Amino acid sequence: MLHHRVPTRFLSVEDVATLVRRQGLVTTLQGLMACLQEDFLRWGQFDKCPRLAAHSPGGVIELMPISDGTTYSFKYVNGHPGNGRMGLPTVMAFGVLADVDTGTPQLLSELTLTTALRTAATSVLAARVLARPDSGVMALIGNGAQSEFQALAFHHLAGIHTLRLFDVDPAATARLVGHLADRGVACVVCHSAEEAAQGADIVTTVTADKRNATIVHEGMVRPGMHFNAVGGDCPGKTELAPGVLQAASVFVEYEAQTRVEGDLQQMPPDFPVTELWQVLARQAPGRTTPEQVTVFDSVGFALEDFSALRYLHDAAQRLNLGHPLPLVPAMTDPRNLYGVLSRVPVRALAQPWLEPKEHLA
Amino acid sequence: MLHHRVPTRFLSVEDVATLVRRQGLVTTLQGLMACLQEDFLRWGQFDKCPRLAAHSPGGVIELMPISDGTTYSFKYVNGHPGNGRMGLPTVMAFGVLADVDTGTPQLLSELTLTTALRTAATSVLAARVLARPDSGVMALIGNGAQSEFQALAFHHLAGIHTLRLFDVDPAATARLVGHLADRGVACVVCHSAEEAAQGADIVTTVTADKRNATIVHEGMVRPGMHFNAVGGDCPGKTELAPGVLQAASVFVEYEAQTRVEGDLQQMPPDFPVTELWQVLARQAPGRTTPEQVTVFDSVGFALEDFSALRYLHDAAQRLNLGHPLPLVPAMTDPRNLYGVLSRVPVRALAQPWLEPKEHLA
Repeated sequence: MLHHRVPTRFLSVEDVATLVRRQGLVTTLQGLMACLQEDFLRWGQFDKCPRLAAHSPGGVIELMPISDGTTYSFKYVNGHPGNGRMGLPTVMAFGVLADVDTGTPQLLSELTLTTALRTAATSVLAARVLARPDSGVMALIGNGAQSEFQALAFHHLAGIHTLRLFDVDPAATARLVGHLADRGVACVVCHSAEEAAQGADIVTTVTADKRNATIVHEGMVRPGMHFNAVGGDCPGKTELAPGVLQAASVFVEYEAQTRVEGDLQQMPPDFPVTELWQVLARQAPGRTTPEQVTVFDSVGFALEDFSALRYLHDAAQRLNLGHPLPLVPAMTDPRNLYGVLSRVPVRALAQPWLEPKEHLA
Repeated sequence: MLHHRVPTRFLSVEDVATLVRRQGLVTTLQGLMACLQEDFLRWGQFDKCPRLAAHSPGGVIELMPISDGTTYSFKYVNGHPGNGRMGLPTVMAFGVLADVDTGTPQLLSELTLTTALRTAATSVLAARVLARPDSGVMALIGNGAQSEFQALAFHHLAGIHTLRLFDVDPAATARLVGHLADRGVACVVCHSAEEAAQGADIVTTVTADKRNATIVHEGMVRPGMHFNAVGGDCPGKTELAPGVLQAASVFVEYEAQTRVEGDLQQMPPDFPVTELWQVLARQAPGRTTPEQVTVFDSVGFALEDFSALRYLHDAAQRLNLGHPLPLVPAMTDPRNLYGVLSRVPVRALAQPWLEPKEHLA
């Protein structure tokens, strides 16, 4: 009797942290990658649109909806590079999974932590088909909130044994090195992006500045390199010099969105790109030679959050995590909305989540 | 120290019901109308777009974002006419108010109950400038979830003393009559929409069918009538025959959206309409003669939810309602997102909301 109960499960930041701790970070990243792969392979089933962005001088707030006809999801996410000065995260996010047939919101989850996880999982998924299989050294430029997730995903799931680290703030690099200390990956602290890229097989950029910053220029490119460009993700925010894209085969998540938001925004509208799903589905080649330079111009697409939300939903049901959240009314007579004003209070907020199968049948 | 605390206030369905009970329904509707009026009068300050709709055979799920440059809001809302058969509400909604400068979500609130309240408040706001000032009799066609709110708003705030009620389901009308029994408004139960419209000064339609239904045809129109058309609100869902619009002066919330979603979708693209804000700001005439027929082709616009959310936020702070919801991380070092995985759990979900001024400064 779904309608007599609170239909929405809430996963807080702490719930998702617990979910990751219980499963282990690597298992979680692997599970996310499996969901991402599954969903990229059924690309045609999704009703897709570029995200809806509200720009302001200090940053951007975006809504990212998508549906596969059975399940609908959206993510709310901001990007405010100056937030650190106020002690706030640059990126904060949450999202919802809803049933298309009834519109019922089934899951409301934090997605700040999850965005970092799904972005790292997507980066590895792409690198597995785009980077050289013998890649062992990765430059990691930008050592902020997302860097541990990128570092550990590439170490545990893509064979990276050495990280070459650079951030304009040495304290950020020091924090990252501290977190990686017992993880079995060698860290080389570098003093410039150029130095970090030297000898790297993969160059990952995760910087946060909202401007056209040239983090990677042509002089840093060597044959066979793969660029995992994560930080350039909205109009006026890029990391790669146009010449880097010119010298490479460029892969994107969703062309319509990346043309506007990605490093690709610097290139003419007919600059050739390949969507990642095509490579995963073997409908287009990924890397074809060891000398080829490849770029994954990653901006983050709604499908990735859909995959992450359904992964969280399944894992939360399995691990019995979360709380029922009275976000929408549970009524005996759905036409009696007015009756909600007079009925006896339903105190569901403080209850732990019980009988998940019955709730979410 | 905002960032060490949970920045998001949650208002459940029960919290909003409590808010309405504590203040009284009429005071709440008046407060909403004041916020709506204020926001419609600063129309030019808002960054507006038509809502983003995901249509499916059973209904629609929509996201409705808007920003005034200082505050951003969005609403999630579904419309599934068949939900009643599954014991679920036709419409379920929730929304968020966020700070544009940092992207911090400040309020997450239920909006199912609130949508019914703000729609009724908007209807009255429009009727005050579009209906005849001596209007006393209102037909209310469609006696579902929203009908009590429309009935009471028009009775207490627009001088309606008699309601002429019709619904295809007599049980719905009976429930409505029961709820209005001690409210001082006379109810006449009618057996057809035609009968309900007889002698009415205002005709309010709030039906739910997702099809082009002709609830009001030309033969029902009398000189001086005002049509408050609330139920036709997405492509393929209309209530008024084209001839009714042809015979009337038509007013809309936001032309770009109503051309696609409103009863207006049946008319040629150059069919003249006036936006409500223009009338409220005295930049365009509303009703000019007692004989004029007026139509408010209301589909619901994001600005109305913005107004409702800021009203709820203010009232919840004043009445100390709601709970802190750990939707986004509260971190000592915002770059240390990875640290969230290992820190001591923050159990904020079950706490009542404390020190609202400090939290939300």
